This record gives sequence, structure tokens and C-alpha cells, in this order.
Amino acid sequence: MNQVAFIGRICREINLNQTQDGTAVLNNTLAINRPYQTKDNEDADFIPFVAWGNRAQLIDEYCKKGHLLGITGKMQSRHYEKDNNKIYVLECIVENIHFIQPKSKMNETKEMI
Amino acid sequence: MNQVAFIGRICREINLNQTQDGTAVLNNTLAINRPYQTKDNEDADFIPFVAWGNRAQLIDEYCKKGHLLGITGKMQSRHYEKDNNKIYVLECIVENIHFIQPKSKMNETKEMI
Amino acid sequence: MNQVAFIGRICREINLNQTQDGTAVLNNTLAINRPYQTKDNEDADFIPFVAWGNRAQLIDEYCKKGHLLGITGKMQSRHYEKDNNKIYVLECIVENIHFIQPKSKMNETKEMI
Amino acid sequence: MNQVAFIGRICREINLNQTQDGTAVLNNTLAINRPYQTKDNEDADFIPFVAWGNRAQLIDEYCKKGHLLGITGKMQSRHYEKDNNKIYVLECIVENIHFIQPKSKMNETKEMI
Repeated sequence: MNQVAFIGRICREINLNQTQDGTAVLNNTLAINRPYQTKDNEDADFIPFVAWGNRAQLIDEYCKKGHLLGITGKMQSRHYEKDNNKIYVLECIVENIHFIQPKSKMNETKEMI
Repeated sequence: MNQVAFIGRICREINLNQTQDGTAVLNNTLAINRPYQTKDNEDADFIPFVAWGNRAQLIDEYCKKGHLLGITGKMQSRHYEKDNNKIYVLECIVENIHFIQPKSKMNETKEMI
Repeated sequence: MNQVAFIGRICREINLNQTQDGTAVLNNTLAINRPYQTKDNEDADFIPFVAWGNRAQLIDEYCKKGHLLGITGKMQSRHYEKDNNKIYVLECIVENIHFIQPKSKMNETKEMI
Repeated sequence: MNQVAFIGRICREINLNQTQDGTAVLNNTLAINRPYQTKDNEDADFIPFVAWGNRAQLIDEYCKKGHLLGITGKMQSRHYEKDNNKIYVLECIVENIHFIQPKSKMNETKEMI
């Protein structure tokens, strides 16, 4: 069993990419406020997430940096080599998207750009 | 919202530690089988987890490396410096433990050691 | 393990009650849109929820009928007798509340009443 | 967002049915122990669940009454008429199954029947 549910804010500019075979992919990070933080610690947790295909396109279409977003999915681990070091990555693979920001507002904002 | 639910196997020997103020803490990693893996990829995801206080003591008392364990909790991010590099850690803070391995078996195993 | 995560709209007017010993309690229902509904079916699922104590007071203070709300918690079952029939109730006991509606708007609305 | 994760015991004999169009469907109830019950209350919550298609067949093949089972999915509400009363049903639609009971044991038990 591997199941997660997050509500947080999109940390970086939305950037839709494509794999070599043409699949849409979107990497970003969700900042989730800690409800009971201590003053000296961070007040948010940062969860990297990856959306594929149609989910990537929907986030690209409807979301902007700073928007509140709900996602469910699973945590996936991978590792790669960099400068002879093994780098471990743990990220959320998005399965369902829950748009929270009002859509009308999003469209207005898009039109303004 | 920051909520996770995992069932997986305990990857390393159980090692109960204490912070300077005497709080019990237990760090380990859960290996969660991927139900639909591809042959060339890993067949499991590895989720670091941290249990504090009473939860740490319960896992120490009832679990061994290789045991199946269910946990719920939240993902927490932190970072530290190592050799002038910023290392990011994402780990599950355990809130509820769900023992799956039969308890009688666990006790037998403990007695054998 | 008994863990749920919902985002939906509050279905009825907020009504804060007290038990005989003075504990605050709030019963309501969350309407959760089905993302992939069929035309002939309902387009939402209705989940009764109960919040106790401080959580009940926070929902009463910040929410109105129709507001979008995120909750996490667990499903709890109970039954009672009515006209010689056993009535079964399954409801979400709220553990964490995630306010989604902008707070400023909520206060404005409250002031208008 | 509508996401649940349960671990509990199967309450009734497994009974695989078919809809009129030949789709496999399995209805049962999961009994989930309450970790912190009060003496006078029930010590478990009872969650009706429905599995469709391949998931129904897997539960039928590998599970028996009394087995521990992990499920994830969503809560779905429906209602029907009975004796001029509207009956409301809230049940978990199974999306992922997590077999916890050792498979060898299950097969042995099946062979014994």
C-alpha cells in the first residue's frame, strides 16, 4: 500500500516537458504548511511531485506558481549518479488532481499575461 | 493536508536511539512492492521513516528487519550540510502503527535470539 | 488502519451543538464531486462527518454552507434503534481540517449577516 | 478528493456475484479494530466494501472470512427505496487490494475445504 494525499501551494513556475517518445511530463514541488510548527523550524514541508500525460497537461492549463492544489497518488523512489555520488530522489507520482483555486480567476490571470 | 498510508517491509535492523533529552527515536526504511513494475526498473519504492517516543518503542519491541508493517503519518522535509553540499531529506513521520506480522511469531523469534 | 482524506462542499447550515458534559460537537455532510460520473447517476458522494471540541468550533467559526473544505480522519460506524429498526450510521470523524475558502472572504460574509 | 485506506478483517463468507452484463462483483464488510476504544463501545468499525471485476475475482481467489486485508479506494454513497423508506448506503469502492495473509497458508486452507 502506497497512498498519499496532499494540499499545498505550487512552488515553482509551471514547466511542461515531453519525454523522447512525446509523453507530457511536469515536475514541480508542493509546499505544505505545517499546522503546528516550531518558530525555529521550517513552517512548511516541500514535496516534489511528477505528473504524466493528461494530468501534466491539466496542471499546465489550469495552475500557476503559488496556486493551492490538492493531489493524491503515491511516493516513488529512484536514484541516479552525479559526480560519482548516488543521489536519492523521493517524489509523489500524481494520480488525481483536485483544483482548489477558482477556475474563473485562473482564466482571468491567464488572459492578463 | 499531508497524509500518507504505507504497507511495506522493514529494510534494516531495528535500532532504537535517544535524543539528548531522552526521547526515543527510531529511523528505518520501508520497502513497498510496486504492483505493476517494469522488468528493468526497481520492483519496490523505499520510504525512509522516523518514529518518536512511544511509537519508536513499540516498533522496537514488536518488529524485526523483514517484517511487514503498516504505517500512517505525514511526509516531512528537512535539509542539512555535508561537505559543502545541501542534502535534502524527505521522510515519513509515523503517527499510527499497524502491526501485521503475527505477534506470537514475533515473540518466539525474540526468545530465540 | 482507518484513514480518509476528503475535499468537498459543506451541505447544510453549520450548527454547533454541545453534549451534556459541555463538549462542542458539529454534524454535517460533505458533498464530494465524482470526477467521472455517469449521466444517470448522482454526480457527488455524500459523506456525513462529525467534528468534536476545538475542531467543531473552528468549523463553526470559519465555514458556511457551500464552502469547500478539506478534512482527514477516520470512518466510524454506529447503530441505533428507531421504530424497532436498527439504523446503521457510517460517518467520518474529523481529525484535521484544511480550510480552502479564503479567510478574508469568510469574515466579510460573516460581517454581512 | 475522496481517498481511503483501511486494514481490517473480512467479516462474512466471500460471495462472488455477477451483474446482468457479466461483470464480477463482490460485497463484504471490513472490521477495523479501534486502537483506543472505550469499554462500553464497540471495539471495531464496520466498513462495507464493494470490489468490481478483476479485484472481485482476486479477493474471491485469495481471501476467506476472517482474513486480514488492506484496501484503498473511495467512499461512495447511494440510496434506494425499501418499504417506502429511503435507505442510505455508504460503502468503500475498492481500487487497490493489499493481501496481508500469507499466500501459502491461504492455499493450504483452500485445499482443505
